[in-house]
Amino acid sequence: MNRGLLIVISGPSGVGKGTVIGMLMKNDKNVGYSVSSTTRLPREGEIDGVHYDFITAKQFKSDIENDRMLEYTVYCDNYYGTNADKVERLRAEGKDVILEIETQGAANIKRKCPDAVTVFIAPPTFDDLKKRLSGRGTEPPQVIEKRVRKAREELEKSDMYEYVVINDDAVRAADDLCAIIRAERIKKNNKFIF
Amino acid sequence: MNRGLLIVISGPSGVGKGTVIGMLMKNDKNVGYSVSSTTRLPREGEIDGVHYDFITAKQFKSDIENDRMLEYTVYCDNYYGTNADKVERLRAEGKDVILEIETQGAANIKRKCPDAVTVFIAPPTFDDLKKRLSGRGTEPPQVIEKRVRKAREELEKSDMYEYVVINDDAVRAADDLCAIIRAERIKKNNKFIF
Repeated sequence: MNRGLLIVISGPSGVGKGTVIGMLMKNDKNVGYSVSSTTRLPREGEIDGVHYDFITAKQFKSDIENDRMLEYTVYCDNYYGTNADKVERLRAEGKDVILEIETQGAANIKRKCPDAVTVFIAPPTFDDLKKRLSGRGTEPPQVIEKRVRKAREELEKSDMYEYVVINDDAVRAADDLCAIIRAERIKKNNKFIF
Repeated sequence: MNRGLLIVISGPSGVGKGTVIGMLMKNDKNVGYSVSSTTRLPREGEIDGVHYDFITAKQFKSDIENDRMLEYTVYCDNYYGTNADKVERLRAEGKDVILEIETQGAANIKRKCPDAVTVFIAPPTFDDLKKRLSGRGTEPPQVIEKRVRKAREELEKSDMYEYVVINDDAVRAADDLCAIIRAERIKKNNKFIF
């Protein structure tokens, strides 16, 4: 069996990554989603192994020391990261693994796994994204400004990705993603053997 | 407008390249086929500009000297080659250009056009191809042996291609080719611009 692909997907908040990935996974049953690990406590309704793998800070730090985290970040005193063994297990089963990760983490993963396929999901225009981030106008302007600034920072990194998928239409963007994965499988797996 | 892709397709005789390319071009109207130039005389029914561009030996040699041939070969005292200007004109119009070429010519093109996408169409197994090359058993064994030897030589070069498409089913192989072209367009054309 062929080892699965590792597909790293980034894109600014509000661009619709979740919708596009959801459609992809509905169309392509060989694609699996790797759940992140975190040290924060589960919120109401969150299920261990579904929303996150909830692990202790001790476990997380030991995973970092043993180089078992493909990438990690600290946010509000909690660790968030991607466990290398979990990803590897899925790939060894032939599953293509999708990781949804911000640009800094994606760069770290690409360094550790040079065969990762990197895809950035971008809005058709920056104005379009700004509109989406403004939401229903119920948030204070500072919150929206902060979101827009962060989105701009993410978008500035888009040229380090192998593929940029423009999400002007989620169905078309999901089809783009399907084609990318199909092409990358062919590139990686097909060899002629006598 | 985005400049079109240059797609170089190789594969042994009998593998079904023509069928797969025909299906692709029916599905994807942005793909154009670049007709080769030759110095041989048209056979009955052959149309200038459709089957070949029939040009004089003088013109062909001048094109070679002026580096206007992306690749060329001599067969039975006749020249066969790919005119660079014609390919470039189509690409400038945004058309993706397909060239069907044997492995030596493909290597030359890749050297001159590093952005060319190279695809090798392979049979599911060598035995399968051998069967197809034997045809209806009407040819003398030496002719078949020569074909099989040539096919083996071509197949040995398949690992220098970016993509190997296995033609066990022409519809699936054409879909593979469509996905490759779609992915390569995304890779080449999509950039996020503020």
